[in-house]
Amino acid sequence: MTFTFWFEFASTYSYPAAMRLEHLAAERDIEVRWQPFLLGPIFQAQGWNDTPFKLYPAKGRYMWRDIERICERDGIRFRRPSQFPRNGLLAARIANWHAEEPWVPAFVRSVLRANFEHDEDIADPQVIANCLAEANLDAEVLLKQSQQPEVKESLRAATEQAQALDIFGAPFFMAGTEPFWGYDRMEQALDWYEARMGEEE
Amino acid sequence: MTFTFWFEFASTYSYPAAMRLEHLAAERDIEVRWQPFLLGPIFQAQGWNDTPFKLYPAKGRYMWRDIERICERDGIRFRRPSQFPRNGLLAARIANWHAEEPWVPAFVRSVLRANFEHDEDIADPQVIANCLAEANLDAEVLLKQSQQPEVKESLRAATEQAQALDIFGAPFFMAGTEPFWGYDRMEQALDWYEARMGEEE
Repeated sequence: MTFTFWFEFASTYSYPAAMRLEHLAAERDIEVRWQPFLLGPIFQAQGWNDTPFKLYPAKGRYMWRDIERICERDGIRFRRPSQFPRNGLLAARIANWHAEEPWVPAFVRSVLRANFEHDEDIADPQVIANCLAEANLDAEVLLKQSQQPEVKESLRAATEQAQALDIFGAPFFMAGTEPFWGYDRMEQALDWYEARMGEEE
Repeated sequence: MTFTFWFEFASTYSYPAAMRLEHLAAERDIEVRWQPFLLGPIFQAQGWNDTPFKLYPAKGRYMWRDIERICERDGIRFRRPSQFPRNGLLAARIANWHAEEPWVPAFVRSVLRANFEHDEDIADPQVIANCLAEANLDAEVLLKQSQQPEVKESLRAATEQAQALDIFGAPFFMAGTEPFWGYDRMEQALDWYEARMGEEE
């Protein structure tokens, strides 16, 4: 049984989830797989050509208030990005290809903070290079690698897997086969998994 | 400053909210206005001709699992209705017209339990009559009254007010002017209001 954190670099609620997940999982001795995917193709498949927060303006206005309130409550610095949603494709390709590496959570947080704390354009390779450097990684090598066909294909496959799992938003947590959607379900998902972790062992 | 609970009789997440709200509000000395409205016109205004849980099947499948899990956690009996969404128009007209009456919360819970615990059709006047009788009310008088033009118009106005307040789903809590959407924000909304209740007094 595995615990998987499905996230999107463009997704506001993925940001506080990524900032707090590692700590909350460690408290429960849960190993987490950090799995990026793209919401774009999933939204498109259900007939949306943009984020629901723009297609449905009242929902969008609420979301900005809600995320600001939540980050304040949870002690997470947040600044509303001047551009939304930003294109997280490059970061997602890198994080997905290296998902097993121990540096991925730090890299993910660095990219999400660039987007939601520092208002930087995460579609810009230079911004991603800085995030990689912050995690003590060789940015030049990783950026070049991110353009290889098998790296691109692997992220496409991950997004298809998300769709096959009925994942329709982010963040999304799979506690084994049990689905939990949204930052507000993160602790419930971890508790659920913790209570059943021993079952298979 | 007022605390308003906006709900829909067809809405799954309105059910656990209504079951627990009175107790949680009383613990904090908060007086709540129970305000029904109709989601149908609001969904239509954003281009949906049905509930998003049917328009987006993956979201629907998740919702049924989530509500079942939540009700189990919170000790609320739940049975998935054989028909969804059900038409709560009649119940909403009655609850809205009498929103100031002390019997409204009990009536609302009775109707929501008919829908989500007993799998009864709340569009059926006989079902609503039973719910009214359960609250020791004169069903015949109230059902007849519910067909008067001013009663119908009053509910239309409430739904328009919801829309003007940017309410896009149910349950929705207005803690003064601060918006909170969803059952999972109910306690946050109450806490928010409690912390600021004295400010105006």
